[in-house]
Amino acid sequence: MSLPDTQVSRLATSHTQIVELGERSYPIVVGNNLLGGEFKLTEYVSGKDCLVVSNETVAPLYLDALIANLTGKTVHSVILPDGEKFKTIDSVMRVVDALVDAGANRDTTVIALGGGVVGDIAGFAAASYMRGVAVIQVPTTLLAQVDSSVGGKTGVNHSGGKNLIGAFHQPKLVLIDTATLDTLPERELRAGLAEAIKHAVIADADYFEWLENNVAALLAKGADALAHVIIRSCQIKAAVVAEDEKERGARALLNFGHTFGHAIENSLGYGEWLHGEAVAAGMVMAAALSELGTDQQRKLVALLDAVGLPVKPPAVAAAQLRKAMSLDKKVAAKRLRFILLKSIGSAYIADNVTDALLSQVLERDDA
Amino acid sequence: MSLPDTQVSRLATSHTQIVELGERSYPIVVGNNLLGGEFKLTEYVSGKDCLVVSNETVAPLYLDALIANLTGKTVHSVILPDGEKFKTIDSVMRVVDALVDAGANRDTTVIALGGGVVGDIAGFAAASYMRGVAVIQVPTTLLAQVDSSVGGKTGVNHSGGKNLIGAFHQPKLVLIDTATLDTLPERELRAGLAEAIKHAVIADADYFEWLENNVAALLAKGADALAHVIIRSCQIKAAVVAEDEKERGARALLNFGHTFGHAIENSLGYGEWLHGEAVAAGMVMAAALSELGTDQQRKLVALLDAVGLPVKPPAVAAAQLRKAMSLDKKVAAKRLRFILLKSIGSAYIADNVTDALLSQVLERDDA
Repeated sequence: MSLPDTQVSRLATSHTQIVELGERSYPIVVGNNLLGGEFKLTEYVSGKDCLVVSNETVAPLYLDALIANLTGKTVHSVILPDGEKFKTIDSVMRVVDALVDAGANRDTTVIALGGGVVGDIAGFAAASYMRGVAVIQVPTTLLAQVDSSVGGKTGVNHSGGKNLIGAFHQPKLVLIDTATLDTLPERELRAGLAEAIKHAVIADADYFEWLENNVAALLAKGADALAHVIIRSCQIKAAVVAEDEKERGARALLNFGHTFGHAIENSLGYGEWLHGEAVAAGMVMAAALSELGTDQQRKLVALLDAVGLPVKPPAVAAAQLRKAMSLDKKVAAKRLRFILLKSIGSAYIADNVTDALLSQVLERDDA
Repeated sequence: MSLPDTQVSRLATSHTQIVELGERSYPIVVGNNLLGGEFKLTEYVSGKDCLVVSNETVAPLYLDALIANLTGKTVHSVILPDGEKFKTIDSVMRVVDALVDAGANRDTTVIALGGGVVGDIAGFAAASYMRGVAVIQVPTTLLAQVDSSVGGKTGVNHSGGKNLIGAFHQPKLVLIDTATLDTLPERELRAGLAEAIKHAVIADADYFEWLENNVAALLAKGADALAHVIIRSCQIKAAVVAEDEKERGARALLNFGHTFGHAIENSLGYGEWLHGEAVAAGMVMAAALSELGTDQQRKLVALLDAVGLPVKPPAVAAAQLRKAMSLDKKVAAKRLRFILLKSIGSAYIADNVTDALLSQVLERDDA
C-alpha cells in the first residue's frame, strides 16, 4: 500500500483525495464551510432528483445549507430518528418508501447527511433501490469523516450481529465539511478519534506519534489538527480500499479492534456505547492478543486514555462476549480470525489464535 | 451478441452453458434427474454449511433429494409460503434470521430451490447477508429455468413497484433438473413459455418459428422439446447478460413486455396473474407500440394464444396502468422507456414513444 505524503497545514480551500477503483473511483473532498461556500454539489448529481437522508439531530443544523447548495435540483428529504439502535432494516425501508413517494428512478441520487448510522442506512437503501442508485456521502461526525463514509461498506444491524445485512456500494462523492464538527458533542469527537488511532496503529507509526503529540489540539477542535486527522485517515483508508475493495484480504486490517468491539456493542445493546468507544476497548484487547511488546501496549492504552476513550470492556460476562463474537463476519469457517499487531504501524491477519489465549484476554477483563 | 448453435436433440447426460462474466463466470447445467443422479452439487459448495431456501409446495417434492445430494455438508433449511405476494422484504428477513440461527458465516452457501420467487428472495438474502455470500440457483419452474435463475437479478416487491428492492448478485451455479417439471402445474408451464417466447421475439426469429411448430410437444411436457427451450433460452440470456451484466444497455431488451407486464401485476395485486401471464399481455401491448407490421403482430398473438396465454390486459383502467408504469425501473429521467420490435427476432430501446401513442395502446384495451 503506497500512501501520498502528508503535508496538510492550512487548508486554503479544499483538499481532494481520490479513491482509486477504476470506473467506481470517486473523490473525497475535505474543506471548511464547503456546504455554504464555493463547493458545487450539483455537479455530482447527474439526474434531476435527490433524496437527502438525515436524522433529527443533524437536519435542523445543516439540511437548509445542503438544500441551498442544490440549486436547480428537486430535493426531497427523509428524517430518521437519531441513534445506532435505529440502524435497522425498518429504517432502510423508510428510505425506500420516501424514494417511492418521491417517484425516484434510476437517475435519482441519495445524499446521506449525518454520521455513520445515517450513511450506512442511506447507502444500503441506495444500493438496493432499483438494484442500485447513486449515493453521495456528506458525513457530519468525525467518525464518519475519518472512516465510515469512505469505502462503500453499507448495512444495518440484526439482533444476531452488527452490520449483518448490507452491501458494498461505493459513493459518487464524499463531501467532508469540517465546519460541521463545530456542533459535534465531545463524546462523539472522542469516539471518532478512536478510528483515527486505529488507522495509525495498523498502518502508520508516524501518524500515531503525531496523534500522541496533538491530543490537546484535537480535543479543543483545532481546525488544522482535525483537518490533518481527516485527510491522513482518508488517505490510509482510500489506499486500503483501492487495494482490496471487497475485503478478500488486506482490507480486513481495518477491522482491528472490531471483532471485540462488535461483541461489546452487541452484548450491551446497540447504542449503549458509541461504536468508537467499543472499538477503543476492542483495540486494547486485540493488542493484548498480539505479539506486541508491553511498552507498545502501554503507548496504545495511554493514547486512548488521553483522548478519553475506554481502555477495557464494560462489565459483560466473558461468555456473552464470546457468543457475540461467534457470529461476527470475521469468523471464517468457524475459526475466529483476528487482526493483530506486529508493532504499532503494522498489522496482520491471524487465523491461529488459540482458544486458551482468547479466554485469557476475555476473562482478564471479566467483571 | 453471438449465440452458439442450437443442436439439442436427446440429452445424453447434461448440457452446460457458461455465463461469461470474468471472475464471476458460472455454469448453467441442464439435465434430467440431476438432483437424484450423477451430478455432484457438493463440488460447488465451498464451505461446510448450506442453507436451502424453498417453499411449502416445492420442499415436500424435492428437498430430500437435494439434501441427499449434499453428502458431507451441514444442511439447514427455511421453508417460505408459496406465492408472489410473499416476495417481500419480510421474507428476505426470514432467510436472514435462518442464516443467523444456523450460525452462518461468509463461507456459507445459500441454495434456492423453487421458482422465481424463491430464487429472487434467496438471491437477495445471499447478496445482503454479511454483504454477500454464495448462492446456487436450483430452479424448479419453467419460468425460473428459462429466465429468472440466470443473470443475477435478485429482489423483492414493494407496494410502489415490482422488484423495487434488490441487488445484482450472480450465482455460483444454476442447476436445472428438467425432472422437476413433471410436477409443474399446467398454468405455470404456460407462464414459463411466455419468457421463452420473449427470448425468441427479441433475439432469434428461427427460435420463434421452432416454438410455433412445437407448441403441442411443449404443452404435453415432451422432454426433448422442454430441454430445447431451456437450453436455447439460457443461451440467449447468457449472451445478453455477458454483454451487459448491470443493464446499462442491451440487457434492457430482456424487459420486452415487462413495463406493461409489471404495471399489470402491480395494478391487479401481485400474484393475481402469474408473471409470465402479465408479460404475455405486455408483449402484445409493446408490439402494438412498435413499427411491427400487422402480420408479425398477428403471429405473436397467435403463438401466445396457442400456448394459452392472455393476449390483452385484464380489466384495469388505463389510468391505473399508467400510474403503475410511472414507477417502473425502466423509467429514465421521467420519460417512459420501452423495448420495441423492428421485427420478430429484433428488438431495440425506444425513448421517444409519444404520450398519444401510449394512450392509444392503453385505452384500446381499457375495460
